[in-house]
Amino acid sequence: MIKHLAIIGVGLIGGSLALALKKAGLVEQVTGYSRSQAAREEALALGIIDNTAESLAEAVSDADMVFVAVPMGAMQTVFEQIAPHLKPQTIVTDGGSAKQQVIDAARQALGNKFDQFVPGHPIAGTEKSGPSAAFSELYQQHRVVLTPVAETNKSALVRVRQMWQQAGADVFEMEVEHHDVVLAATSHLPHVLAFNLVGMLAQREDCDEVLRYAAGGFRDFSRIASSDAVMWRDICLGNRSAILELLQQYRSGLDKIEQAIRQDDGDYLIDIFGRAKRARDTRFADPDLKDNSEV
Amino acid sequence: MIKHLAIIGVGLIGGSLALALKKAGLVEQVTGYSRSQAAREEALALGIIDNTAESLAEAVSDADMVFVAVPMGAMQTVFEQIAPHLKPQTIVTDGGSAKQQVIDAARQALGNKFDQFVPGHPIAGTEKSGPSAAFSELYQQHRVVLTPVAETNKSALVRVRQMWQQAGADVFEMEVEHHDVVLAATSHLPHVLAFNLVGMLAQREDCDEVLRYAAGGFRDFSRIASSDAVMWRDICLGNRSAILELLQQYRSGLDKIEQAIRQDDGDYLIDIFGRAKRARDTRFADPDLKDNSEV
Repeated sequence: MIKHLAIIGVGLIGGSLALALKKAGLVEQVTGYSRSQAAREEALALGIIDNTAESLAEAVSDADMVFVAVPMGAMQTVFEQIAPHLKPQTIVTDGGSAKQQVIDAARQALGNKFDQFVPGHPIAGTEKSGPSAAFSELYQQHRVVLTPVAETNKSALVRVRQMWQQAGADVFEMEVEHHDVVLAATSHLPHVLAFNLVGMLAQREDCDEVLRYAAGGFRDFSRIASSDAVMWRDICLGNRSAILELLQQYRSGLDKIEQAIRQDDGDYLIDIFGRAKRARDTRFADPDLKDNSEV
Repeated sequence: MIKHLAIIGVGLIGGSLALALKKAGLVEQVTGYSRSQAAREEALALGIIDNTAESLAEAVSDADMVFVAVPMGAMQTVFEQIAPHLKPQTIVTDGGSAKQQVIDAARQALGNKFDQFVPGHPIAGTEKSGPSAAFSELYQQHRVVLTPVAETNKSALVRVRQMWQQAGADVFEMEVEHHDVVLAATSHLPHVLAFNLVGMLAQREDCDEVLRYAAGGFRDFSRIASSDAVMWRDICLGNRSAILELLQQYRSGLDKIEQAIRQDDGDYLIDIFGRAKRARDTRFADPDLKDNSEV
């Protein structure tokens, strides 16, 4: 049971955690803060939070648990502003999609309270955002990865793990660097690829007419290009080195496919396409993954 | 009403047309041919076809309408083998995803019967293939593009149009070259991008573990990488010039994103990602497209 939860950022990620814990009856009071007054009021009206705070200081000063669910580029500022107002027993955790950058920011901003911080990443979401996108089932049977570091307080880690389990998630621990590479491969790079395709088509004069002939394959492929631009700018810059490395590999793969098409090398294409098909068919036959739906 | 329909290739595309026309009571007899005896027997057992042919000659010799639904690399051979056995009034149409190559093959192989050929492309499908994947509703509210050329017999064009409408499709006509560019942009390039990503991840030693953390966004993005490798080899080689041109544009876009990430140019990323999001949100709010589902 959490007595007082503070949600910094009342959108899909923060709002859905609040709703899940409220529905389970495992939180007494939820205070929400957002830079946007409209978002605060919307979250209040939707019953996501019980009261709004006018400042970060006010939001966290009485909280037992603080969940920071803002775009990664805003995390350091949030940490700096809440640091002086955290009680010794207050736990802070976050939902950032790349962990090294958030950990660096927290270490710098929280100073001697850094041990109260538990880095986390709920691997769940949709391409929608804002309070109205939040729903209590978002985390059910989804994975939440925690990436504690040497300083992380062990009992804080246990409490954050419990909180996510109570919200319905399967909680795993992972090394920071490994997390950042895995997520770059399965989430960050695919977003860049989809944004790039749709962005390129959007620049065509005949975009509307072209997309009229796009069908389900394109729609699924490009769904993640509907994701929030600020959030994804921050992720790209925040997980720069892992993303750049994978992007290099990806481009080298594209080079080879391009060369094969140019040289009429059908065997190479069959080899690559077949390998991809087998990997995907095998891996996603796993029922375990069927209901996952991160953006 | 079609008296005798011959389906060359009894998989998802050919089989679904046969099932749709049968269900509508608009075909008297369907003969199916596949190189694979197992596929022929499966199609017969599933009621997709009424009888099987042992050869292409046998399949088409009594047909009024011939639908060629084989991978594009096999089309020329099929055209060559059926040409001597087509009656003057027999209409031939196809389901190839790139039209110029099929038209060139048909022109060469059909000779003075080329006017009996109506080039077509049903923009529908799933990532599955084979007779068991066929279903009668596949084409309902999906687009079928016909790309007639100067020689195409006008009444043959009308009959093919009617056939697809009877199968539930919305039929459009398009210039060959325009079709090939539009489909390269919305279908062929996305397939290459998805195959390349999944193929790259499949080569990692930690592939299984990495994909364990992949969620819905990745699954949707990569669904088209489950498509048939032979079919997509043929499309890549068959629509080479349009695909290579778009691939160049795509790579140049990736270059710019990579540079922006490297140089911490968040404004550029916001610009591209935001443009993509707006284009997709606007275009796919169109209810018209909601039920389309080509691979």
